[in-house]
Amino acid sequence: MAYFDNAATTFPKPECVYNQMDLIYRQMGGSFGRGDNEFSRSAKQLADETRQLIQNLFHCPAKQVVFQPTATISLNVIIQGLIVSGAKNIFVTPFEHNAVTRVLHHYAELDRITVHQLSVTKDLQYDLQRIQYQFDRDRPDLVIVSHASNVIGLVAPAEEIFLLAKKYGAKTVLDMSQTAGLVDCNIGLESFDFAVFAGHKTLHGPTGISGFVMKSDIALPPVLFGGTGFESANQEMPVNLPERYEIGTMNTSGLAGLNAALKWINEKGTDNHYSDELSKREHLLALFGDYDFLQIVGDVPSRKYIGIVSCTMNGIASDTAGQLFFEQGIAVRTGLHCAPLAHQFLGTYPAGTIRFSVSCFTSNQDFDELKVALDYIEENL
Amino acid sequence: MAYFDNAATTFPKPECVYNQMDLIYRQMGGSFGRGDNEFSRSAKQLADETRQLIQNLFHCPAKQVVFQPTATISLNVIIQGLIVSGAKNIFVTPFEHNAVTRVLHHYAELDRITVHQLSVTKDLQYDLQRIQYQFDRDRPDLVIVSHASNVIGLVAPAEEIFLLAKKYGAKTVLDMSQTAGLVDCNIGLESFDFAVFAGHKTLHGPTGISGFVMKSDIALPPVLFGGTGFESANQEMPVNLPERYEIGTMNTSGLAGLNAALKWINEKGTDNHYSDELSKREHLLALFGDYDFLQIVGDVPSRKYIGIVSCTMNGIASDTAGQLFFEQGIAVRTGLHCAPLAHQFLGTYPAGTIRFSVSCFTSNQDFDELKVALDYIEENL
Repeated sequence: MAYFDNAATTFPKPECVYNQMDLIYRQMGGSFGRGDNEFSRSAKQLADETRQLIQNLFHCPAKQVVFQPTATISLNVIIQGLIVSGAKNIFVTPFEHNAVTRVLHHYAELDRITVHQLSVTKDLQYDLQRIQYQFDRDRPDLVIVSHASNVIGLVAPAEEIFLLAKKYGAKTVLDMSQTAGLVDCNIGLESFDFAVFAGHKTLHGPTGISGFVMKSDIALPPVLFGGTGFESANQEMPVNLPERYEIGTMNTSGLAGLNAALKWINEKGTDNHYSDELSKREHLLALFGDYDFLQIVGDVPSRKYIGIVSCTMNGIASDTAGQLFFEQGIAVRTGLHCAPLAHQFLGTYPAGTIRFSVSCFTSNQDFDELKVALDYIEENL
Repeated sequence: MAYFDNAATTFPKPECVYNQMDLIYRQMGGSFGRGDNEFSRSAKQLADETRQLIQNLFHCPAKQVVFQPTATISLNVIIQGLIVSGAKNIFVTPFEHNAVTRVLHHYAELDRITVHQLSVTKDLQYDLQRIQYQFDRDRPDLVIVSHASNVIGLVAPAEEIFLLAKKYGAKTVLDMSQTAGLVDCNIGLESFDFAVFAGHKTLHGPTGISGFVMKSDIALPPVLFGGTGFESANQEMPVNLPERYEIGTMNTSGLAGLNAALKWINEKGTDNHYSDELSKREHLLALFGDYDFLQIVGDVPSRKYIGIVSCTMNGIASDTAGQLFFEQGIAVRTGLHCAPLAHQFLGTYPAGTIRFSVSCFTSNQDFDELKVALDYIEENL
């Protein structure tokens, strides 16, 4: 099988990730912050080192790294916390994932918030002048930006948007689920309040470990409660960070894999990682150009992208198309990709698209197999 | 190091758990429910089979298995959901973990619920007659029972309590974090609405994968929102189970480990697992009987226990005691064990106890090392 579903989860992982997960979990099964023993101390060291690796990667030594099991739970903790603490006017890009829009929908239905969509032109440019006008009209309390669309790979100018948002005193949240370790971004800047990362996507770590970076002085009420191995007598969640948000037992095996992945990315370099992925995106685009039956969606050459290309096939439903690729041994993802609002914006709702996503491990053999499959599909349409 | 902190997380895991985690994650890195490809289909099969193994273990083929990253998140999803849907009078045992009591404290502070403690006698018997009186006085909406105390290992008579609770129409939640796969319990009974399990404790699976079993017809409003790879166009969480509560990307590597662990327990048999652990608890008790400086807390011979023994040392703070054991290479846990209310009940608050917890992998060598350490500590007190 040729794997073109890296936006769902990257595969394969670097060898060091598999090795370290297995090694550390066999040697050090302990649970950090839970008892003073060698296992627990080693697990704490592993977590501390991994936090530092995240800080280095994101250029934010002064910000706090909080681990969570998934990026979705991270987004719930942040967005629900900010709404509980009073955020009402909330702006999002047209490309948010259901991990953002379903949380917002819940509170909008309760009439607790109003959701606005940041202005993006038809040719996929974030219209900063119109966004300023939007902010003037409805002063933003919270601005959430999906750093790269998981449908078409378009990268948002997060710094510019957040700089503008900060003039209105808004809190800012960057969802880097598709970009952490791939698209360099200075999270250390004052205009970035929260940045969410997924361990198992562009960071090339395992599933089950993700998290966020935050400014340490933001009052974010907890929305999940439980033991942290810290201040156990206190029935309130501790005010200490990261313990305030890190409830329950940490995924030590996942943490070990993420630690190895971060070192691997550090060695590779984010810029190399990105240029490698971009060249593979170009490979996809060049290949697709040879087949009239594929229509590429949302590709404007002057914009910035990650390694995701979405297509439609004239007159063929995306799940039927998906089945064709499945039968040819090509792993793609079809439909709405948990981002229905993005498809509404792109005009591909409700049918969705066929999404091809690469990683630095996508090989020439994968592309060869894709070409064979495309030839076959073209002949047999 | 001799590991006596199995109540935090069991160590080591069965060899098959390490092997399957590594093997499956290398072979099948996909994300289930996220695209139609071989990886995704295999991951779905793995999840389906694991759900069935849980149903078999808990004797509840007709109930729904929902995976969550941790037991703490499971308890948040259930308890917050039930409070949102109107539960006001909530009864708990005196032995609940902060994963329960901190959630309840949050809503009690908002005056949305009243928390009552189920009556337990000084000699650690659940007083069903008094509990009935309590239920008569304050009709229960929700009864939460920690199946075994993580401080002293006392097993609660969950069936009797829930049978009584059901006469008052209460919802019931059993926290099996310390008992799943160890203390057999018929979750298929009508009186059980929810049962929570932790993958990495008595089930001997990895961290990062846990969950709960629930009756399929209970209306439990979701408290976490996000993509599920299902009904993506719907901005409400789908009503379908388990998708309604399984947000974000599943921990495939963790699921692989849990799958192997469940097969291992199935082969061993829950009853053998329990009698094995009980004999190790007896070993601890017999050993501690030889040392006057240790006072065992909460052990009443006629009651039912799991492999946890808590002690105090006269005049020595539990963290100082913990340090002594640490220096002698014995991993124990000291303090409040994220269950301060249990210590209030036991009279060991705020100092806490030194907790020794075994698993079926606790070896004679571990006990020998513990004896050497106890001799040394006795001589050097």
